[in-house]
Amino acid sequence: MLKGDMEVMYLSANEIEQLEGVEKQHFLNPEALRINKSLGDAVGLRNLGVHQVLVPAGHYSTEYHVHYYEEECIYILSGTGVATLGDQQQRIGPGDFIGCPINGQAHDMFNDGTEPLVCLVIGQRLEQDVTDYPKLGKRLSRNSGEWTVVEHAAITTVRRKKA
Amino acid sequence: MLKGDMEVMYLSANEIEQLEGVEKQHFLNPEALRINKSLGDAVGLRNLGVHQVLVPAGHYSTEYHVHYYEEECIYILSGTGVATLGDQQQRIGPGDFIGCPINGQAHDMFNDGTEPLVCLVIGQRLEQDVTDYPKLGKRLSRNSGEWTVVEHAAITTVRRKKA
Amino acid sequence: MLKGDMEVMYLSANEIEQLEGVEKQHFLNPEALRINKSLGDAVGLRNLGVHQVLVPAGHYSTEYHVHYYEEECIYILSGTGVATLGDQQQRIGPGDFIGCPINGQAHDMFNDGTEPLVCLVIGQRLEQDVTDYPKLGKRLSRNSGEWTVVEHAAITTVRRKKA
Amino acid sequence: MLKGDMEVMYLSANEIEQLEGVEKQHFLNPEALRINKSLGDAVGLRNLGVHQVLVPAGHYSTEYHVHYYEEECIYILSGTGVATLGDQQQRIGPGDFIGCPINGQAHDMFNDGTEPLVCLVIGQRLEQDVTDYPKLGKRLSRNSGEWTVVEHAAITTVRRKKA
Repeated sequence: MLKGDMEVMYLSANEIEQLEGVEKQHFLNPEALRINKSLGDAVGLRNLGVHQVLVPAGHYSTEYHVHYYEEECIYILSGTGVATLGDQQQRIGPGDFIGCPINGQAHDMFNDGTEPLVCLVIGQRLEQDVTDYPKLGKRLSRNSGEWTVVEHAAITTVRRKKA
Repeated sequence: MLKGDMEVMYLSANEIEQLEGVEKQHFLNPEALRINKSLGDAVGLRNLGVHQVLVPAGHYSTEYHVHYYEEECIYILSGTGVATLGDQQQRIGPGDFIGCPINGQAHDMFNDGTEPLVCLVIGQRLEQDVTDYPKLGKRLSRNSGEWTVVEHAAITTVRRKKA
Repeated sequence: MLKGDMEVMYLSANEIEQLEGVEKQHFLNPEALRINKSLGDAVGLRNLGVHQVLVPAGHYSTEYHVHYYEEECIYILSGTGVATLGDQQQRIGPGDFIGCPINGQAHDMFNDGTEPLVCLVIGQRLEQDVTDYPKLGKRLSRNSGEWTVVEHAAITTVRRKKA
Repeated sequence: MLKGDMEVMYLSANEIEQLEGVEKQHFLNPEALRINKSLGDAVGLRNLGVHQVLVPAGHYSTEYHVHYYEEECIYILSGTGVATLGDQQQRIGPGDFIGCPINGQAHDMFNDGTEPLVCLVIGQRLEQDVTDYPKLGKRLSRNSGEWTVVEHAAITTVRRKKA
């Protein structure tokens, strides 16, 4: 067994079960609630975020959003719910996979069932990212650990992206 | 449903099942064999590699290796086997998680059972990486799509890493 | 000679003299004016910006600013002026060098002489940068070619940088 | 004046003159010799290398080489010599500029005059780079501070770069 070693590379299913989850409410949406276990942190990953996320019944996984830089994806482990992907609604369940290409469609998940919705959420960890929250009309900029938010209405676009 | 749309973000468990797997033999180890389904490619991810990997009974997942730059991790979906993590042997099964921090211990998995070993293998996709294969005494350098291999014995170290 | 070849790596002093400069007024400051010759572009550099910049008498080189990510430096070739570096004023002339570490002091140059102030301005070319203009109370975000500006007063800081 | 401050952003021409140069012989070529003053280090730059380089009469600036990743360029301040750019010879003197696009032509400079050849050498500082020395048939790999060298003859190319 590697337990007790300085470098832990392995977590058994049982050890993951025993990990204490961290309750996280989204800073822009009190209805978005998750119990988070960072598997990646537990084994020393730094550039990949790998989380076992439990969304309680009646809650969103996150505020509806889209990233500019950080790719993200979700693999459903158990439970059911509905994902909003752009303007589409998609029922989701165990073994389903959702990819969130950057600069694409905004997305969230809602647990409309009675059981917890449990999934692996995997994402890049970049020093810089920009995240848009279209329903709230807000933009988050993350720069080396500093998070700032502005209203979309306060943003002046000086030059457009090249196509 | 998003199927038929230009942007596919969602794959159901059934659609993943129907995806045609690609058989991949490791270029340095004919006993390392996997049937690979790139979930990430199917949904347009570019910086994260997300693969459903099936290792048939009696095969290795890959040649025993360690990366310099690309972080990697594995979540076991079904089947059993044994992971070699550095000089440790670890039995693995459904729901277990393995992280592969860079510049750490080399690793591989072997399916010593009778059922397929199926896992999610997730990794960064970087333009540059260096991979060591300690059992073979070889080093792979990947540079913007060009792969070159040298024997460890042919490498002269001019300066050591700073601690 | 390499002239006429597809790959031009060399520009003589005379060829640099003959290059047509591009007049650039700063988008936030009409008094900041430069005649710009991109030496780096002329020789096919993509990640380094290398410019011969001429600031006419009575003009600023740029709006007083500081970058979050893109390092920049200046080597004075001819002429004189005054650089503002944070809250310090510094007279500058030929052979002087100014470095602009990121997240440091804001800076600009003013040509208070009668001759043109000519310098090499060298900087990283990154896909993302954030630039603060403290005198104007504005922040520029550049993201993959899209430039957006917000007033500092419109920015809410949600989390501080780790020290 | 900023001298004495914790953050030095400014070096006068006279201060640069007074800086003590570091003599550097190329690790693969004893005839390649430079007296190096790192202007970038002196002002706290981390991602850009900016050096005032003096090549004594009768010496090469460096071993003939080409980088895979790190862009580099040279601005001649004083003295004369000859640059080898691919298979071309180019006389060089004050005010000339040389750009070294990555994966392009190999290059070096030779001071065939009687005065020192003094130039600004500017380059990216990346964590990883690969450098080929075509005349020596050697390849240097730099990975996070570790330098390793192999003979070209010892390299097996497994996959070619995509065009």
